[in-house]
Amino acid sequence: MLSRLQIILNNPKDKHLNFNISSLLQGIIMEQISYAFATELHNGSRQPYSHYVEFESDQIIWNIQTLTQTAYEQIIAPMMQESMQSIYIRHKNLELSIQDRILEQCSYDQLRKERYFTDGSRIQTIHFVSPTAFKSQGEYVFYPSVHFLFQSLMMKYDACSDDADLFGREVMEHFEENVKVIRYKLRSYSFQLEGTRIPSFLGEITIKINGPQALVNLADYLLAFGEYSGVGIKCGIGMGAYKLDERKRG
Amino acid sequence: MLSRLQIILNNPKDKHLNFNISSLLQGIIMEQISYAFATELHNGSRQPYSHYVEFESDQIIWNIQTLTQTAYEQIIAPMMQESMQSIYIRHKNLELSIQDRILEQCSYDQLRKERYFTDGSRIQTIHFVSPTAFKSQGEYVFYPSVHFLFQSLMMKYDACSDDADLFGREVMEHFEENVKVIRYKLRSYSFQLEGTRIPSFLGEITIKINGPQALVNLADYLLAFGEYSGVGIKCGIGMGAYKLDERKRG
Repeated sequence: MLSRLQIILNNPKDKHLNFNISSLLQGIIMEQISYAFATELHNGSRQPYSHYVEFESDQIIWNIQTLTQTAYEQIIAPMMQESMQSIYIRHKNLELSIQDRILEQCSYDQLRKERYFTDGSRIQTIHFVSPTAFKSQGEYVFYPSVHFLFQSLMMKYDACSDDADLFGREVMEHFEENVKVIRYKLRSYSFQLEGTRIPSFLGEITIKINGPQALVNLADYLLAFGEYSGVGIKCGIGMGAYKLDERKRG
Repeated sequence: MLSRLQIILNNPKDKHLNFNISSLLQGIIMEQISYAFATELHNGSRQPYSHYVEFESDQIIWNIQTLTQTAYEQIIAPMMQESMQSIYIRHKNLELSIQDRILEQCSYDQLRKERYFTDGSRIQTIHFVSPTAFKSQGEYVFYPSVHFLFQSLMMKYDACSDDADLFGREVMEHFEENVKVIRYKLRSYSFQLEGTRIPSFLGEITIKINGPQALVNLADYLLAFGEYSGVGIKCGIGMGAYKLDERKRG
């Protein structure tokens, strides 16, 4: 099960909050979960959740996304409790009141039906809405490429989905051969995290997927999954969120 | 001798002119030059001029830049004649009146003195002000990289400067090892040229140059030269112009 909880918070204008509060909000998530699950997260290679913040003039939309049923129960369910009426960020001595909660859920089966077994568009626009980065050979990569994008999504999918190891090197090669970036608008961003700065990027790219329709559908499915998982590094600390341009579908 | 003539033209608002008039303006340049020089340009591998347009609300600034004395005499000198009071673009039946002309000149010696024999900054911001692209293995490359940027500048410098073959593979390797893009803000642009569309980019990058100061100075000198030559493909048709951020120098 894929789940997305949007928690609508008030945005105190005088505080000038930005993406850098993400790591403090991760602290809130960590306070909710059980010791056993925290240990599992800490020791495991898979990260069954992501989260990110969006800023509107008077609202902060905090998106918490889980990729498994267990993660839903551990992370999202506690945040759904009506007794929780505000989020307190200790580090900033800041209380953000919860104005609304919106929960969306989608099973892997449903996503497959909508995105893999329905013909997708060969043109996809990906809006990176939180600072995004990849890591390669020990260095941060702060621009998107077909290789880093699909490699990251495939790894996240295989780690958390019901399917065991759907993707492999061969599929990666098909993506690299057939997917091209045809338009972009990107800028670098220096993401502050616990005293260090991670070079990252924001913006959008439009890709074109050539080759057989089955590959287009597979890309479409994987990209739709990625809206829940995020892409690249530190999606559990607010990085790597993207949205697909739904207007261009179909 | 490096020369830059800025021709200030009126900008007819109802015409919505954009970068795509560059190839028509190249036609104007070609009309001025001698048959012998046109033949030389056509047959030669070196292109001793570049040009590009900048748009302001009521003005178009047409920048014509030459890299040799001959190119100055053939291309810029005719444009300096006071009898020429307007530019007529036949293809659009459009007359643009000349409001002003500004000529800047700089010898290679002077540029060397200012940029190579004076310590330059390790941080350089490059603003790509006309659509820019590179070509590699038969394909357009519509993003900047240290490799494409410096390779192109080195080739243009060696083709047109007083020095014979200043640059080689070794220098290229030094640049690739020591120069990193640390910030960027870029977007793709589809440049229309004689019925085809060339994928290109606009925007800015900030680079950091590590290594010995001599390498920093060499990069500084080469980048300053590139403000006259342009970078990448089709600088003679209005592509590849950039400006360095002078505020950040020193």
